[in-house]
Amino acid sequence: MLLPKSTVNRLSKYRRLLSRYRYLEQPHIFSHDLARMVGVHPVQVRRDLMLIGISGNHRKGYKVNDLIDRIDTTLDHGKINRVCLVGIGKLGRAILHFLNETDNNLLIKAAFDLDPTITGQDYEGVPAYHIGEMAHIIKEEEIDIAIITIPSDDLDNIAQLLTGAGIKGILNFVPGQLVVPEDVYVKECDVITLIDEVGYFIMK
Amino acid sequence: MLLPKSTVNRLSKYRRLLSRYRYLEQPHIFSHDLARMVGVHPVQVRRDLMLIGISGNHRKGYKVNDLIDRIDTTLDHGKINRVCLVGIGKLGRAILHFLNETDNNLLIKAAFDLDPTITGQDYEGVPAYHIGEMAHIIKEEEIDIAIITIPSDDLDNIAQLLTGAGIKGILNFVPGQLVVPEDVYVKECDVITLIDEVGYFIMK
Repeated sequence: MLLPKSTVNRLSKYRRLLSRYRYLEQPHIFSHDLARMVGVHPVQVRRDLMLIGISGNHRKGYKVNDLIDRIDTTLDHGKINRVCLVGIGKLGRAILHFLNETDNNLLIKAAFDLDPTITGQDYEGVPAYHIGEMAHIIKEEEIDIAIITIPSDDLDNIAQLLTGAGIKGILNFVPGQLVVPEDVYVKECDVITLIDEVGYFIMK
Repeated sequence: MLLPKSTVNRLSKYRRLLSRYRYLEQPHIFSHDLARMVGVHPVQVRRDLMLIGISGNHRKGYKVNDLIDRIDTTLDHGKINRVCLVGIGKLGRAILHFLNETDNNLLIKAAFDLDPTITGQDYEGVPAYHIGEMAHIIKEEEIDIAIITIPSDDLDNIAQLLTGAGIKGILNFVPGQLVVPEDVYVKECDVITLIDEVGYFIMK
């Protein structure tokens, strides 16, 4: 059974915060401490962790390393996410930089662009290839997630290339419609739509 | 009565697409054409537009300019969103560049950073100030929305400065907890949480 999206999002945040304590000896944490760090109610934390089969100890709290392992197994199905970036413009590079600087559980295996003056080198340690090489690199590197930041009137074509090569999940920062097969999970993250949402829900 | 978040997000996308046709003479559009462009069902489009009090003409479709005006009134409550950026690093600059290049209904009035070698100039036409000036600039420019991209262990402090100065809505790209008063609307957009979500919902 799949967990609700909101639980998945909180588990991702718990994992990131907990990973800071991983290298302490036998680290423990109480639900109310984790709750405060993430900004939710302790009951919510306990409910989320119960859902993934973890219960704490009243005196000592949760074992941090067990928690992280369990969240890893749950979120990544025991397999680290292998990611590529499509579009090495300003936004793409900013995202590579951000991912490089932040604790995360991802392998960024490749970046792609159409511009031959951009490809053929590394960005933040990630090799950049021409989009023409996308299909074989995605297969070779067993990449299953793509982040799209390429400004394009031809999103359909890009989506088709990606899914044809085996991409199963897409995080799309570009406004526009993405036509993908039903078994591909797409998360839209369009800055203007996000700001419009904030603008609508504030009181003026 | 407030519209659901999903409707607000679709209205934002309709507006962006429709704005391309604004300068044609008496432009019209059919719900199935708009639906195809956004990637939803025509019934959904008609339902969304009905919710904001617009109905189409069977022969000619919807009047594009009326549609845009109506979406403007609905989403922005008749007032253009005045936005500032906090953090002029790689991600902040990429977002400024993106907003500058894209059709949108926003006024980006100011950008803030802690680094004095960064402030005191313009980025993409937006003046950059030191965070120390944040409170008075936000009041002076009547800014109500802030986009946070500043890497900070002191997010609480930043959030307090912002809301103290009158900010009512925040789009937060930085991982971490944001403590704000109840009447402030916060939208979290943390890249790693988004990728974790995609990773969880794909089949492996």
